[in-house]
Amino acid sequence: MQQIDSIIEAGWIIPVEPANTLLENSAIAIHNGRILEILDIKDARQKYQADALHQLPHHVITPGFINAHTHASMSLLRGLSDDLPLMEWLQNHIWPAESQHVNETFVKDGTQLAIAEMLRSGTTCFNDMYYFPGITAKTAIEAGIRSVVGLIVLDSPTIWASNADEYIEKGLEVNDNFRDEELATTAFAPHAPYTVSDKPLQHIQILANELDIPIHIHLHETNHEIEQSMTAYNMRPIERLKQLGLLTPNLIAVHMTHLQQNEIDDIAENGVHVVHCPESNLKLASGFCPVSTLSSSGVNVALGTDGAASNNDMDMCGEMRTAALLAKGLANDASVLSATQALEMATLNGARALGLESKTGSLVAGKAADIIAFDLNSIEMQPLYNPVSQLVYAGSRDKITDVWVNGQHLLANRNLTRMDQQEILDKVKSWQKQINS
Amino acid sequence: MQQIDSIIEAGWIIPVEPANTLLENSAIAIHNGRILEILDIKDARQKYQADALHQLPHHVITPGFINAHTHASMSLLRGLSDDLPLMEWLQNHIWPAESQHVNETFVKDGTQLAIAEMLRSGTTCFNDMYYFPGITAKTAIEAGIRSVVGLIVLDSPTIWASNADEYIEKGLEVNDNFRDEELATTAFAPHAPYTVSDKPLQHIQILANELDIPIHIHLHETNHEIEQSMTAYNMRPIERLKQLGLLTPNLIAVHMTHLQQNEIDDIAENGVHVVHCPESNLKLASGFCPVSTLSSSGVNVALGTDGAASNNDMDMCGEMRTAALLAKGLANDASVLSATQALEMATLNGARALGLESKTGSLVAGKAADIIAFDLNSIEMQPLYNPVSQLVYAGSRDKITDVWVNGQHLLANRNLTRMDQQEILDKVKSWQKQINS
Repeated sequence: MQQIDSIIEAGWIIPVEPANTLLENSAIAIHNGRILEILDIKDARQKYQADALHQLPHHVITPGFINAHTHASMSLLRGLSDDLPLMEWLQNHIWPAESQHVNETFVKDGTQLAIAEMLRSGTTCFNDMYYFPGITAKTAIEAGIRSVVGLIVLDSPTIWASNADEYIEKGLEVNDNFRDEELATTAFAPHAPYTVSDKPLQHIQILANELDIPIHIHLHETNHEIEQSMTAYNMRPIERLKQLGLLTPNLIAVHMTHLQQNEIDDIAENGVHVVHCPESNLKLASGFCPVSTLSSSGVNVALGTDGAASNNDMDMCGEMRTAALLAKGLANDASVLSATQALEMATLNGARALGLESKTGSLVAGKAADIIAFDLNSIEMQPLYNPVSQLVYAGSRDKITDVWVNGQHLLANRNLTRMDQQEILDKVKSWQKQINS
Repeated sequence: MQQIDSIIEAGWIIPVEPANTLLENSAIAIHNGRILEILDIKDARQKYQADALHQLPHHVITPGFINAHTHASMSLLRGLSDDLPLMEWLQNHIWPAESQHVNETFVKDGTQLAIAEMLRSGTTCFNDMYYFPGITAKTAIEAGIRSVVGLIVLDSPTIWASNADEYIEKGLEVNDNFRDEELATTAFAPHAPYTVSDKPLQHIQILANELDIPIHIHLHETNHEIEQSMTAYNMRPIERLKQLGLLTPNLIAVHMTHLQQNEIDDIAENGVHVVHCPESNLKLASGFCPVSTLSSSGVNVALGTDGAASNNDMDMCGEMRTAALLAKGLANDASVLSATQALEMATLNGARALGLESKTGSLVAGKAADIIAFDLNSIEMQPLYNPVSQLVYAGSRDKITDVWVNGQHLLANRNLTRMDQQEILDKVKSWQKQINS
C-alpha cells in the first residue's frame, strides 16, 4: 500500500481530458498537491492508503472552474448601480466610487469577498485585472486559490500609478515579487484600447514577450469603443492591435462583441484567446460575442464572469449555463455549445488562455489537484440521465459541496476551511456603510 | 391585542404593489390564509399576538413567484435529451418517451417532484399544461401549492383522450371536480396551433367564455410553427387565432417569438397576456420574444420556466434573471427590464395573466399570504445597496429559505414541511431506471 495525501472516490468523474469521457465509480489519488492517477475505486483501495478519504457516491467530480476575467475587489461595489449602460455606469457611478474608495484595504477586503464567493461556486483559478495587483496575489495565495493577477496599465492617473510608465514599472515589480509562487502568476493588463495609447501597448508587447507572460485586455467590449477607435485612430481596435503586433497566442482578449468576419479570421490565424463574459455583456447591453463562430473557426474561447459590479455574481456555474443557452439562441441552433463544450470552456479552455494548461484545467495525472464536486442527489438534480448535462443545465453553485486547489480542501461540505466567513462579512458591511454614505 | 395566525417580521419587504415600494423593518400580519395588513414591526408587536412569529431581520420578503407556464410532471424527463432543436427533441425523444411511460402515476410522481423543486425555489403558484390534469390538481392541493391546471386539448390521440371532443369532455369533468377549490383553478389548454384544428379551438373559445376561465396555448414558439401554419392555413398562427376569435384578455399566449409589428399591435389591442419562457426558448433555439417591445406596447408579460425537460429546471429566480439580462442584450439598452420590472413579471404579471390578480401576485391586505423570504446575509448577497437589485441580479434559489402559500408555511429554513423529500427522490429514481432501460 502506497501512503498518499488523499483520495476522492466518486460516483462519476468528468476529467474533461480526454474529451467526452465519463468515468463511473472511480477515484482520484492525490499527493503533494498533484493528481497521481485516476483509477477504479476497487483498484484505488488496494493500491493506496490515504490520510484523507472522501467518499462521494452521489457526486460528479470535475476540474475546478477557471474564471478567465475578473475584477475581484469590485465585489464591494456589487449592486451599487444597476440597469445602466456601460459608459454611463462607468463614468457616473463606478469610476467616481473607485476614485473615492479604492485603496490597499479595499483591494484586500474586496478580493477576500470575491475569493470566498468563487470558492463557494467552484472556481479554483481566476484571472484578475485591478489596481494593487500585489495585494490581490498575496490575498489569493493566503486563501489558497490559484490566480493570475493582471499588471494593470492605463494612460491616466489612479491611486495605483500616475502614468503608463509608472504602471508598467510597478507591474514589473509585482511580477518580480511573485516570480517563484506556485499559486500566483502574472499577466500584463493594459485596460482597453480606449484607455491605453500605442507607445505603452508596444512596450508591454516587448516586455510580455521577454517575460513570457500573457497580455490581458478588454477588447471590443462595446460599439462605443469601436467608434472611439475609428475617430481617434481611423481603424477598429483589433486592426490597431494587429498593427501594434499584439495579436499573438499571448493575447487574452476579453468580451469581443461586434466582430466582423475579417476580425474573426485575424483572431483565429494569430492564436488569440477569447474570454466570453455573457452575463456582463447582457447586463450592460454591450453586444454579443459570436462564440459558436469563434469556436468553429478554431479560436480557444474561455469563460469569465467579469466583476461582480456588472454581473452581479462571480458564479461560473451560472455563467457556463448562460453561455450555452445564449450561444444556442444566437446561432439559431440548439446543438451548438453542448453541455460538454460549455464545461470545457469553463475549465480547460481557461487554462489554455492563461498559459496554465500544463498545470490545471483538466483531471489528468501530473496536473494540480484543482477539483470540484457537485452533489447530484437533490430534488433539483434528479432524475439523472446524463451527469454533464445535469451539471450544466440543471446545476447551480449551491450544489458544489467540495473544492480542492492544489490538493488543499478549501471548501468542505460547503464550508470554507481556510477563510473566516463572518470576518469577511463584517468587513464588507463596514465598506457598505462607507460607500453608501 | 388581536390573536392571529402568524406574523412575519422582516428587514425589507417588497410588496410589488404599490409599485417601486421598499419597506424596511416591517411586518406582515396573516390570518386565515390572508394578509391582514403590512405595518411597522413596532406597531405589529403592539397590535397583534401571533401563534407563529417569524423574525427575519436579514431577509427580504416578496410575493411568491408565479410560474406561468409549466409541464410539471415532465420533470421526470429532465436531462433525458439535450442540445437538440425543438422538433427533433419532441418528435424523436420526448413524444416517444411520453407515449411509452406517461400514466396517472407518472403525472402524480412527476408533479410531486416539480412541486418540491418549485417550493424550494420560491414558486407559490404554477400554470400547468399536461395529461391527467385532475391528478395534477389533486397533487398540488395535497402539497399546498396554488395551481391552474390546463385542460389539455389535441386533435390526436394520447393516453388521456382519443380526439378533440373527448379531451374537451374530460377537461370539463376536471373543471367540475375542482370548481370549489381555493387552491386549484382551471384553464383550457389547447396545446398549440399546429396540433389543434379550427373546430375545437372555436368550441374551446365558447366554453371558456361561458365558464370564464382562461385559454392557455403555446403560440409562435418556433419559426417552424409559423411556416406550418402558412402551408396549412395560408396565414400566420396569430392571424388564425384572431379570425377564430381567440385573441381576448382570456388568452395566455406562451413563447411568442418571431413576432411582427402588426402581431404585437393585435396582441396589445386585444389584451392578450404573454408568457415569456426565455431559458426554454434559448435552449431549444426557438427564437426571441420581444419582451421590452411588448411591455412598452402595454402587453402584460408574465414569466414561465416551461417544463424541466427543456430548461432544465423550474427555478423562477434564475428565470427572472435570465429574462432581465436577455431583454437588455436584445434591446441593446441596459435600462430595459429593470430589476423591479423583472420581479413584477415573475409575480403580479403572472397573477394577471392567470386571472388571479385579486387573490395573489402582490403583498396587499386581503390577498392570500403567498409569500417568500430571501436570505441576504451571505457572501453571495453582500454588500447590500439595493434589495430588489440584489435578489434579481445576485440572488439564487438556494437563498430562498421560507415559503408560505395561503398562509401555510410550506418551506421552513429550506425544509419542505408537508412533502417527504426522500420518498419523492426514491420514486424518481425508480422512474429513472424504468425510462432509461
